[in-house]
This record gives sequence, structure tokens and C-alpha cells, in this order.
Amino acid sequence: MTMKFSIAVMPGDGIGNEVVPEGLKVLNRAIEVSGEPAELELTDYDVGASRWHETGETITDEELESLRKHDAIFFGACGDPSVPSGVLERGVILKMRFGLSHAVNLRPSKLFSGVTSPLANPGKIDFVVVREGTEGSYTGMGGSVRTDTPYEVATEVSVNTWYGVERAVRDAFERAQARNKKLTYVHKHNVMVHAGHLWRRVVEKVGAEYPEVAVNYEHTDACTIFMVTDPSRYDVIVTDNLFGDILTDLAAAVTGGIGLAASGNLNVEGTAPSLFEPIHGSAPDIAGQQIADPTASILSGALMASHLGLEVVAKSIETAVESDLADRDGTKRSTAEVGDAIAARLS
Amino acid sequence: MTMKFSIAVMPGDGIGNEVVPEGLKVLNRAIEVSGEPAELELTDYDVGASRWHETGETITDEELESLRKHDAIFFGACGDPSVPSGVLERGVILKMRFGLSHAVNLRPSKLFSGVTSPLANPGKIDFVVVREGTEGSYTGMGGSVRTDTPYEVATEVSVNTWYGVERAVRDAFERAQARNKKLTYVHKHNVMVHAGHLWRRVVEKVGAEYPEVAVNYEHTDACTIFMVTDPSRYDVIVTDNLFGDILTDLAAAVTGGIGLAASGNLNVEGTAPSLFEPIHGSAPDIAGQQIADPTASILSGALMASHLGLEVVAKSIETAVESDLADRDGTKRSTAEVGDAIAARLS
Ligand SMILES: CC(C)[C@H](C(=O)O)[C@@H](O)C(=O)O
Ligand SMILES: CC(C)[C@H](C(=O)O)[C@@H](O)C(=O)O
Repeated sequence: MTMKFSIAVMPGDGIGNEVVPEGLKVLNRAIEVSGEPAELELTDYDVGASRWHETGETITDEELESLRKHDAIFFGACGDPSVPSGVLERGVILKMRFGLSHAVNLRPSKLFSGVTSPLANPGKIDFVVVREGTEGSYTGMGGSVRTDTPYEVATEVSVNTWYGVERAVRDAFERAQARNKKLTYVHKHNVMVHAGHLWRRVVEKVGAEYPEVAVNYEHTDACTIFMVTDPSRYDVIVTDNLFGDILTDLAAAVTGGIGLAASGNLNVEGTAPSLFEPIHGSAPDIAGQQIADPTASILSGALMASHLGLEVVAKSIETAVESDLADRDGTKRSTAEVGDAIAARLS
Repeated sequence: MTMKFSIAVMPGDGIGNEVVPEGLKVLNRAIEVSGEPAELELTDYDVGASRWHETGETITDEELESLRKHDAIFFGACGDPSVPSGVLERGVILKMRFGLSHAVNLRPSKLFSGVTSPLANPGKIDFVVVREGTEGSYTGMGGSVRTDTPYEVATEVSVNTWYGVERAVRDAFERAQARNKKLTYVHKHNVMVHAGHLWRRVVEKVGAEYPEVAVNYEHTDACTIFMVTDPSRYDVIVTDNLFGDILTDLAAAVTGGIGLAASGNLNVEGTAPSLFEPIHGSAPDIAGQQIADPTASILSGALMASHLGLEVVAKSIETAVESDLADRDGTKRSTAEVGDAIAARLS
């Protein structure tokens, strides 16, 4: 019996087109080497700037429906300076996160050996951020009146529901329980009292079911300080969509850069496929030159493998990446060469 | 002729009570040494946790009115775990920022020589953040329904006006023009399109009046990366209330910690007094032990002096602080000893 996994592939814009093939190359090779009777069936989806320029389309409702039949989505990056800010972000990335109920945006942060941190004394860094992915300041609610006059008022409404917050918080407690039993929840409840107190109550309520997990609260501003002075303190962080966006980029920076940071947008209820992507963007400035680091896409492949139940495959990719990182000596390699080198280390 | 400046003094909670006297000690001594015919007339205001416990009051409307007659406010810190989160923040700190139109929250970030940054290669760091202080996610607008049920919805409304954004942006351009002519405006306009595009239009419009200033945009998440990988790139940063809160704590961390970071909450229209405070909080864990570093309060005194037109006084405090910092060798000194040492260096 072969397990066939149907994967939607979306390289998107810029370096997305260079890193996604490497992510898939390593993933396919890892499956082969593992001897698992698994096979990936790939379906390409064209999303991004050129399609928008040609057709005015981002992701259509029909495509969103068609995406549902896949087992997972493997995404590159989206965004180009030629497209007005927000069009592809809201029309592609957020359309999928919201439409496919990606309740948890999972972002592991680990300082691998051999990787240089910008911190003088980084210590051991190994935590995951569970970022809520479907609400908060990302809903697009709000608007503007008297637009482009001196009397303009523009609002953004952060929407937070018990249902949405609980999905993320519960996932975070599960992960903390399986890891080092430390959960830090991050908000700004001294200022954003309505949403902040909802978060607090959800954490207290769900936390009662996980008596072994030690819970700690930090304001977002304080968390950014600890991220550079004491990142070893963290095991699992749970936070809202906007704070999570900021904190995970900072976390990526202190662990050696967004070139290495993978993420999963998880549908935790199993009602639609989850999506795996590097947290970096399309990087138009370096696109098309085969100089982008595909490591984040390769690690996103490992997250996807783990999500599909292919734990051995996931582990072997992580191990191959770790050993490649430990041996990096500054020699310049092309995007494809990094992919080849990591694939060659699989065993 | 003596210039008498009427200063409202609010030590507040925790270490506020220890650092504010040092800030005033150094400021008074600096005025004396400068020979300026200036004098501070101090009026104490009791704000904070103990008053709230005794009377249920934060800052009353009468006090807010009475504050208007002062030339400036010298603030310590507010907050205590015994008070529900948000009560003192909204009732004292934000009540003044909003009620006295503190349009600009000015936060300089400088890595002084002798100070250790957590970054391995910090380079030269010397920038100021102009944080909008009267709107954004700080208005308190929003609320919750079905509170504390599984069907709860809680919202926070970020309110942004052309008027409010322009005040901050104009101030930032003025500072950039007087400094190194580089302005970075930070937002998240790819997601928060309503507010983000208002910010963009205001920056473009006001920027046309400052053709010499080079303007650059960064997403907030990207800015946190550069804050740890390349903070030397910044000269003046302008951003909204919430992003500014986060970025200035991070900036304080990379320049050696919030023990050193001063700030001014500026009424840029001259309709009410401005307020000067360390960016750190009341630090209840170390309060009452005379171990808090008063440097941020002392530097806040310098910002206040400069605001009152006492440029020589301001400069002499900064110089004294710089020379004290350069000579710090890890010897433990009490809060008052640091104040004394800096006062003794004034000339
Ligand atoms: C591109 C953008 C919409 C996105 C976000 O803000 O979530 C990105 O920064 C990320 O973190 O995945
Ligand atoms: C105490 C709190 C209300 C305040 C803020 O969020 O502005 C503080 O963090 C600051 O930065 O001055």
C-alpha cells in the first residue's frame, strides 16, 4: 500500500520560486530514503504578482474550495513592490489563513549549532510560538471616512473571540505539556483591556486542565526585551496575531535570521488542509539570482511531513539541516546547491 | 530676574519613589552649576496604587485641570500587582497622555560608551523614536459581549486621524531635518490597510515639505529584525502608539536596558504641559531596596530641561551621565549614590 498525499504547491513570488523546489526536493528524497510507502502528488497553483497583473485575480473562491481537497499546502512567498501593499497579503495569504481556518500559526525558534546569533550571549534558544492566526488585528475590519482629507479617521478593529483564542491557547498548552511544561502568554492587557482580559480568562480556564504546565504572563513590550536579553527562558509562547507577527520575526532574527525560520498554518480541527511556509517574504531584491537560502522552506517541509504523520521523514530532514548548518563555513552556495547538500545528508 | 518653572512631581509607585528624587537632585544641581537664573517650584501629586487602594481614585478631572497650570510634569512610574491590570495605566498614565494631548512620545535610543549591549556587534546606535501618543490602539475603544462565556467577542479599535498622525509625523520630520535627515516610518500597512494607508499618505504629504529628508518605510516585523541586526541604520523613526511601545522597549534593550531609557510625552501645540518619565515601570520586585538605576529618570530631567529652554542644563546632565556610564565598572551603588555621583560630575 502506498500513502498518497495530495499537496497544493504555491511558489508565489520572488525567491518563493527558488526555495520551494528545494523544499520539495529534500522532502521527496527524505521520503525515498526513509522507505516509508508515501508519495507526494503535487498540484501547482499560480498565485502572486504576475497573475494579479495579468488577470486582477488573487485566490478565487473556486480555488479556495479546490484547495480543500488537498492534504496540505506548500507555500513559498507572496508580495512584490509593483502590487499595491495589502492586495496579495489580504488576497492570497490572509484569504487562505482565514478561509481555511488556520487557527494556529506555529513558529519554532531554535538556535542551531553553527549558526551565528546577533546576540553576544544567546545561550540555548529553543522555543515555539503559537500565534493565533484567524482574528485579532488581521480581520481587515475597520475603514476610513473623509479619506485623504485633513479630517480623515481610519480604524482597525481587532476582533477576538473566546472560540478563536481558545483554539490557539489549547494548542499551546498541548505543546507545552509535550515539551518543557512552560507556557508564556503575551499580550498588552494593561492597555488593551477588552481583548487582553479575554485572553487572560481563556488562559486561566484552559490552564486548569493542564496543572503541570507553569504559566507566566508578559506584556508584549517586555517580551521583546527578554527576546534579546534572555531568550532561553521560553519554551512555548502563545499570543495574538499581530503580536505574534512581530515576536516571531524578532525570534527569527535572534536565532540567526529569517532565512532559517519555518512555519505552519495549522487547521487544528481537521476541517481543511494546513499550510507550510518559510516566514520570510518574497525578497524581490535578491530574487532570481539563486542566492536565497532555502533552509526555511526545507524546514517547512519537515513541519509538513510531521503534520502528515511522517515523523521519521520530518526528523531526518531536521537532522540533515542541523548537520549542514553545523558545517557551514561561509562558502557561498547557490540555492540549489544548499538543497542538494542537505538532500545528500539524508540517511 | 529669576525664571520660575512650576513642575508637577509624581513619583508614583515602586521604584518611581526612588528614582524621581535623583532625577530632581541632578536637575537642581545642574541648574545651580550652570548659573542660569532658573528655579524649579515643585508641587507633589499623589498618584498610584496606595491612593487607589485608599480612595478608589486615580487622577481626578480636577487634578487634570490643575496640572494644566504647571510648566511640566516629572513622572516616575505607575503600577502594582495588587491593582487590577489596566486601572492605573488607563486612569493615570493614559489619562494624562490623552487629556493633556501628548501627541508625541519621544524616546531617544543611544548606546553610550561604556554600556554593554546584548548585541554582539551593536555598532553606533543613536536614533530617536517619535511614537504617536494619543490614539491608535490606546484609545480604549472597543468592548466585549457575552463576556466570560464561550461565545465572548472582545474588540479593540485602533483609531487614527489625519490630525493626530500629522502632529507626530511633522514632529518627526522636524527632528530628522535637525539630525541626519533620515526618517523611517514603521507600520504594518500590508495588513492594517485602513490605518496604514492613512499613515502613508500623511508621510507623503508632510514629507513634500522636507525634501532634504530621505524617507524609508519598514513593516513593524521587519523593523524588529533590523533593531537587532543593524540598528545603526536609524536616525528618526516615526510610528503609531502600539508599535512605538514595542519598538522602544526593544530599542532600550539593545542600547543597554530600560534602566537607561528616558522619554518625553510632548504636547507639541503648547496647550498643556508635557510630561517626562523613564520608560521603565515601577518594578515592584526591586522596589524599596535602593538598587534601581536612576539614570533614566536623570536623563528624563535633561529632556525636561531642554523642553523648558534650558539647553545648557540639559547638555550638562547628558555629559555627566555619559561620563558616569563610561566609568561604571560593575561596582554596586545605591540609587542615591548613582544620583550623587552624576551630580558630582556636573560642571
Ligand atoms: C505578509 C504578511 C501578511 C504576513 C503577516 O503579517 O502575517 C507575514 O509577515 C508573516 O508573518 O507571515
Ligand atoms: C504602562 C503602559 C501603559 C505604557 C504604554 O504601554 O505606553 C508603558 O509601557 C510605556 O511604554 O510607557
